[in-house]
Amino acid sequence: MLREHDIEIRVRYQETDGQGRLHHANFFTYFELGRTELLRAVGYNYREIEAEGWMLVVSEITCRYFLPAVFDDVLRLRTTVVESRGARVINEYQVFRGDTLLADGRSVVACVDRSGRVTRLPKRLLLERESTSKGR
Amino acid sequence: MLREHDIEIRVRYQETDGQGRLHHANFFTYFELGRTELLRAVGYNYREIEAEGWMLVVSEITCRYFLPAVFDDVLRLRTTVVESRGARVINEYQVFRGDTLLADGRSVVACVDRSGRVTRLPKRLLLERESTSKGR
Amino acid sequence: MLREHDIEIRVRYQETDGQGRLHHANFFTYFELGRTELLRAVGYNYREIEAEGWMLVVSEITCRYFLPAVFDDVLRLRTTVVESRGARVINEYQVFRGDTLLADGRSVVACVDRSGRVTRLPKRLLLERESTSKGR
Amino acid sequence: MLREHDIEIRVRYQETDGQGRLHHANFFTYFELGRTELLRAVGYNYREIEAEGWMLVVSEITCRYFLPAVFDDVLRLRTTVVESRGARVINEYQVFRGDTLLADGRSVVACVDRSGRVTRLPKRLLLERESTSKGR
Repeated sequence: MLREHDIEIRVRYQETDGQGRLHHANFFTYFELGRTELLRAVGYNYREIEAEGWMLVVSEITCRYFLPAVFDDVLRLRTTVVESRGARVINEYQVFRGDTLLADGRSVVACVDRSGRVTRLPKRLLLERESTSKGR
Repeated sequence: MLREHDIEIRVRYQETDGQGRLHHANFFTYFELGRTELLRAVGYNYREIEAEGWMLVVSEITCRYFLPAVFDDVLRLRTTVVESRGARVINEYQVFRGDTLLADGRSVVACVDRSGRVTRLPKRLLLERESTSKGR
Repeated sequence: MLREHDIEIRVRYQETDGQGRLHHANFFTYFELGRTELLRAVGYNYREIEAEGWMLVVSEITCRYFLPAVFDDVLRLRTTVVESRGARVINEYQVFRGDTLLADGRSVVACVDRSGRVTRLPKRLLLERESTSKGR
Repeated sequence: MLREHDIEIRVRYQETDGQGRLHHANFFTYFELGRTELLRAVGYNYREIEAEGWMLVVSEITCRYFLPAVFDDVLRLRTTVVESRGARVINEYQVFRGDTLLADGRSVVACVDRSGRVTRLPKRLLLERESTSKGR
């Protein structure tokens, strides 16, 4: 699996709040886009994963905010796979405007089956070659 | 069925936008709360409706905005059943702050079964006594 | 001004609801993206409009839903300027998946100044060549 | 200042996602409601704080998820002030359905002035009696 993937996201008007800033909860929406697009970049998509009977559910997520983003900003979100084995994926996130880091984050996502029971990740999502490859 | 039901909604910070006002799309979220609570007021709830195999899907919705609402405003939403027969419910909405009308709206909701086919409303949702009662 | 502009929007996971469908209120979020990108396509942007002291506020908006969209669908939103003069812009919207029309809509947006008073549109936003084109 | 405050929140249909569960990002929306209502419970409100020139901005926030919530659940959110001095407030959160803990969280909120500069909290928000109470 890819280790790292960048996407661009433009801040929507509705995503700003009364402070004129991107509301802090929306960074988690962006992180989800990052995970989705990282999957797509390896030729897989999350809709198929659910169709095949797996669900990836967030079990822990955090974000630290350094500088605000405002409406119409074009942000770059870097999503990194830190770990992907057993029943969980750990991702890290960095949100940039140009070269400036606005926020970073980290999540633990668990794989569950249709009954909600924690289960091993589908093989394709494992970071199998972790020890041998130095990234992509 | 009840003809009319009022609920109070306090504007959340996240629901405002860069103009410091309740974002216009969130009125539709409120309308949905109005429909849900009107159902509950007659001893029924939408979760059960879905569990029993029906879904109510919006087929048309509109809102007119007269005055803005801001963060922390306590709004009163009046939801009215204009029609409820066959496979559809027509509702009207009025959003007040105190006695001032801020917005009004109207929706047509269709009843579909699990396969997505339009189907007759569950009996309890019909406005059966429409002609004989003057409603509450 | 341009009369018509198309953008692509991919349905986000968070935008779906318990029915597994794009929640109906999110079409209004998309319509706002459509207006924003139509402005950008003529070399102007809404952030500047607000910085110069104007605000465009929705005074009426409606959507009709024909078929559902689901997570990860790539939709095409066509935004059309039907009228842009005096203090208001009227837009129409069509949402397609491939060649299939899923929904359409219409909005009236009013131009207000910082004090919230309705005011004439900035010149650039007027549909100047309206009289000479074949229009609607 | 109060150390702890409980509110009830009913899960909205729009807040669920394609998994039929309350979307994980919406817990942060709830945490914000918790902070707002804790302030109100001490006779103060966040709208006034902003009117007086302060803004409280989230600088770090995290949530851990133990069990899912679904549409129409009535949740109880407990918001606790762990620390409130200098320029920051630290809160903890617990989300219950009945007696079952579904999620917990923690945030650090910084006080900034209109120019965005970090500044001391308004006196009323300080946890003044911190040293004399048994608290943490």
